[in-house]
This record gives sequence, structure tokens and C-alpha cells, in this order.
Amino acid sequence: MEHGSRVTPGVIGLGSMGLGAATSLVRAGFAARGHDIDAGARERFEAAGGAVDADAAALAGACDVVAVFVVNADQIEQVLFASGAVAAARPGTVFILSATIPPARAEQFGMRLRDAGMLAIDAPVSGGAARAAEGAMTIMASGPDAAFERADPVLRAIATRVFRLGDAPGAGSRMKLVNQHLAGIHIVAAAEALVLAIGMGLDPHRVIETIRDCAGTSWMFENRGPHIADGDYKPLSAVDIFVKDLGIVIEESGRQGFDPVLASRALDQFRRAAAEGWGRADDAAVARIYAGDAGIALPDAGRV
Amino acid sequence: MEHGSRVTPGVIGLGSMGLGAATSLVRAGFAARGHDIDAGARERFEAAGGAVDADAAALAGACDVVAVFVVNADQIEQVLFASGAVAAARPGTVFILSATIPPARAEQFGMRLRDAGMLAIDAPVSGGAARAAEGAMTIMASGPDAAFERADPVLRAIATRVFRLGDAPGAGSRMKLVNQHLAGIHIVAAAEALVLAIGMGLDPHRVIETIRDCAGTSWMFENRGPHIADGDYKPLSAVDIFVKDLGIVIEESGRQGFDPVLASRALDQFRRAAAEGWGRADDAAVARIYAGDAGIALPDAGRV
Repeated sequence: MEHGSRVTPGVIGLGSMGLGAATSLVRAGFAARGHDIDAGARERFEAAGGAVDADAAALAGACDVVAVFVVNADQIEQVLFASGAVAAARPGTVFILSATIPPARAEQFGMRLRDAGMLAIDAPVSGGAARAAEGAMTIMASGPDAAFERADPVLRAIATRVFRLGDAPGAGSRMKLVNQHLAGIHIVAAAEALVLAIGMGLDPHRVIETIRDCAGTSWMFENRGPHIADGDYKPLSAVDIFVKDLGIVIEESGRQGFDPVLASRALDQFRRAAAEGWGRADDAAVARIYAGDAGIALPDAGRV
Repeated sequence: MEHGSRVTPGVIGLGSMGLGAATSLVRAGFAARGHDIDAGARERFEAAGGAVDADAAALAGACDVVAVFVVNADQIEQVLFASGAVAAARPGTVFILSATIPPARAEQFGMRLRDAGMLAIDAPVSGGAARAAEGAMTIMASGPDAAFERADPVLRAIATRVFRLGDAPGAGSRMKLVNQHLAGIHIVAAAEALVLAIGMGLDPHRVIETIRDCAGTSWMFENRGPHIADGDYKPLSAVDIFVKDLGIVIEESGRQGFDPVLASRALDQFRRAAAEGWGRADDAAVARIYAGDAGIALPDAGRV
């Protein structure tokens, strides 16, 4: 409970990652506040012992550190500026921006927050909903020392690892872009491999059990492979997220004069999955595209 | 030393994986024999305490279990049949075939060995030279029970995990094909990601340190990434190996009516690397293709 009296943190955006962060703060003894435009999300946080605010401005005015767990840059724009959160915040409030956004947008948000007298940390996260719920995310962070000093107990409550990658927003988002590049390709590679394996007559559960001990493994193969082996595509992270995130990778690659050969093809496969109605299903549903093309029957638990 | 009197094992092909297996057998107390067409390789095994044979037939005639660690199916053909190893072997000798070969070839070798009165295990391996040297490989194995019973102490001396995938040759090679599909894509993905990261101004060592704690990581990213970050392409596993192995993936995919979108593009990149003179360099040298295309300068330790 030691941090409770020093810092009041708030979380805007109580989806799977934000709710995990917010409940981790409650568990760590903070008088944490939360806001989401969805009433059901607010109720879930109240049920977990949190205090909720009806709008983002009210939350920002009551907090010293505000973590923003929305989905994209437009939503950050909406939350920080259109909704009046920055206008309502006290000078020196730390805004932790945890969405996956183009690095240039992270730099711009950082400058606008600084000009408004605020502190900003570019702080994309990794680890998935399960680690978020445990307060065990990894944060790829950049921002000024003063922001980290103030936000330190908050960051430590929601993450086991905080990589400090620079003293201004931008570097965190560049690192997250690299992570999403790899993660997106690895999901599609896992789908491609497992559908081929099933086509060759191998049992997909046995494939996962074997390959996880071999040089072909990846975090995504081990995490998403079972969704394909079980035929269970209830969304933990949706196809649409990787349509967005690999879109950011391709856009930034273009700015660098770089041709991301594999990422471009992985994005094609996610876009096809979205076009065929799997956009809100688990991203492992990209396996359905491969299976459909080749006429290979996949396990199907009937859950999306 | 308990196994020494029961089984005499031999290893044909004393490259990085075979030498690791053979020295692991010596260390486990076996009177292990070794053969390689290269005199330098034979001398390295003698220096490690092994007994060497000048030809494959002599080794096969002196051993109960013969592990064949050559590079491809044509070399297995050469070693087993053209060189007279099978003709010289006692009936019931177990041949452990550890090269990465097309599954159909593994099935054929299994049938021919059976028809010659021998036992065969289709036994591709994973783990790299370091784990081979420690007797800590992973084996993806299939073959009849009688073969496993006889070869069990040998397999346990060279591997920490032996996955038994079926009672006939073929299944082991199908699993290895899936592993190489993923491993090949992951190497190219690591190269693509790290060159893009360097282009964006990130430090590649910092990228590896960060991503290995995030959802974008893979075995290959962690293993090959440092070669790119250090600019050190002295070959642990060469570009040419993945030209061969992804070629097997593409060929088998064609037989299944399956389009391996990412594997095909990964193979294109390895082929380009080979065409530009990197065929015998470490497979991470595929990063040079990306860097050359985009005009991005990579670390270069000058070691190939």
C-alpha cells in the first residue's frame, strides 16, 4: 500500500490490456481510477475494486499519472485533446501512451504534451492479456527522465520489464514496430506451417509439442499454434489488430526506402482473412485462408 | 561406461552435428567409431578419443548402430549403398538417418534397409552445433520398435529429447520439414526486422535484448540476431543449407497442392544471398540482401 498516498494513477481504455494494467494497480495498493467509453468495461473495473470516471477529462484532472490503453493514434488524439483530458490535467501530469502507433505520431504527441506542460512516455507494451492481468507486461519505453521518475511506481506495478530506449517519445514506438513486424510474420508462419503439417497427415498438437523444443519455435507459434490445433478462434488478439499494425510497418518501411518482403505478404494474408469475415476473430484464423486455398480440413471447435 | 560393452555405435559424417554426436558417445563411455571422407574431420574425432574407419563399409561392419550425419539424400544414397555400408553390415544393424531429406526419400530408404535385413530410424535433428556437442540435440524420430529398443542408449547419449512420431520412416522427416519451414522463415524475418530497425536508427543489440522479452521473439531471432548485430557471418549453419531445406519444403508443399506463401519468399531471399556469393556464409547473411537493396549500412566484423 506504500505507493497509494504518493501517486494517483489512472487508466483510460479498459480493454484486455488496459483492464489488466488498471487491476494490477489496484492490487499494488494504488487508489487507481479508470475510464472507458464502454459502460460494461467500467463496470468490470469497478467490480475489481477500481474507481471509475465518466469521462477522460475527469480522470485526467484527478490523476498524477495517466496511462492510455486505446487501440490507435486516432483514439489517442480523441482521448487526449478532443475529450479535454490534457486541458483538465494538472501541469506535470505524466501521460503514458501504450497504443501501437506510427513512430512519427508518437513524436508528435510527445511534443504537443510537452508544449501543454505535461510529461509524456512513449510506452507500447507486449505480452498479451494474460501477462497484463498479472502486472507482468513488457514495456518498450522512451521519454524524459522526469517522466520516468514520477511514473516509476506505476510502471513497476504493471510491468516486469521496462526497457528505457531513449529520452524522447518515438524510440518506444520504433521498437514496438519491430516487435509487431516479427510477431505478425510469426503468426502467419505458424498458420502456414500447421496447415501444411495437417495436410501431410501430422497431428497438430504433436507438432506443437515437438517444434517448441526445436529451432523452429517462436513465442507466437507456441501461443497461437494451439488455437489452430484446437480450431478455437475466440479472439484474444484480433486479425484486425495485425491489419493495422503491419500496415504501420509497411508505411514506416516505405519512409525508409525499405522493402519488407515477408511482412508485406503476411499483411496480404491478414487482409484476406479480414475480407473473408475473420477480422474480429483471433489472429490465428489466418490459418483458414491457407486451408481454404489448399482444400485442407482444419480442426474446428466452432468458437469465434 | 555401462553401455560400452553392449552396443558399438558408429557415426558416418563428422561435420558439426555428426562430430558432436560422436564425441557425445565417447563421453558416454561407448567404444564409438567414426568415418568422414574428409581426413581433417577424422583427425578431429581421433583427437576427441574416437576410433576412426577409413571407409563407411568398414565402420558399418564393426558397429551395431550406425548414425548417418550427412547433408542430403544423395549423400545417404552414396554412404549406404554405393560405398557398401549396408552390404558390409550385420543383419539387424540399426541405421539412424539424421539428414534433412524429403519425406518420400526417408520412406524409400526405410524400405530398402528393411529389405536388406536392417533396421532404420528416420531421425532428423534440431538444436544446432552447440547442443550437438553437449549431447543435447532434439530428435524427430520414426521407425519400428525393434530399432528404438536397440538404439535407445545411443539416442539417449546424443539427445535430451527423442520424439517418437510413428513406427516407420517418413514421419520424422515430415516433422523436420515443418521445423525447417518455420526456422527458415524466422531467419529471414529476423534479418528483415533487424535491417529495418537499424534503418530506423535503433541499436541492434538493444533490439535483441528487448524483443527477446516480447511476443516477437523466436529461437532463430535470438540465435541468429547477434550474428547480424555483430556483423559476423562465419558459418555455423550456411545459407546453402536453407536453400536446400526450403527447397524441400516447397517441393513437398507442391505435392500437397499447398502454396507456402512466406516460405517461398524466404527461399527467394536465401537464393539471392547464395547468388551474391554468401552461400557458404552463415545463414544470417541474408540480412546483406535487405541492406543492399535499401542502402542501409550494417555492422561488419569482416568475418565470414
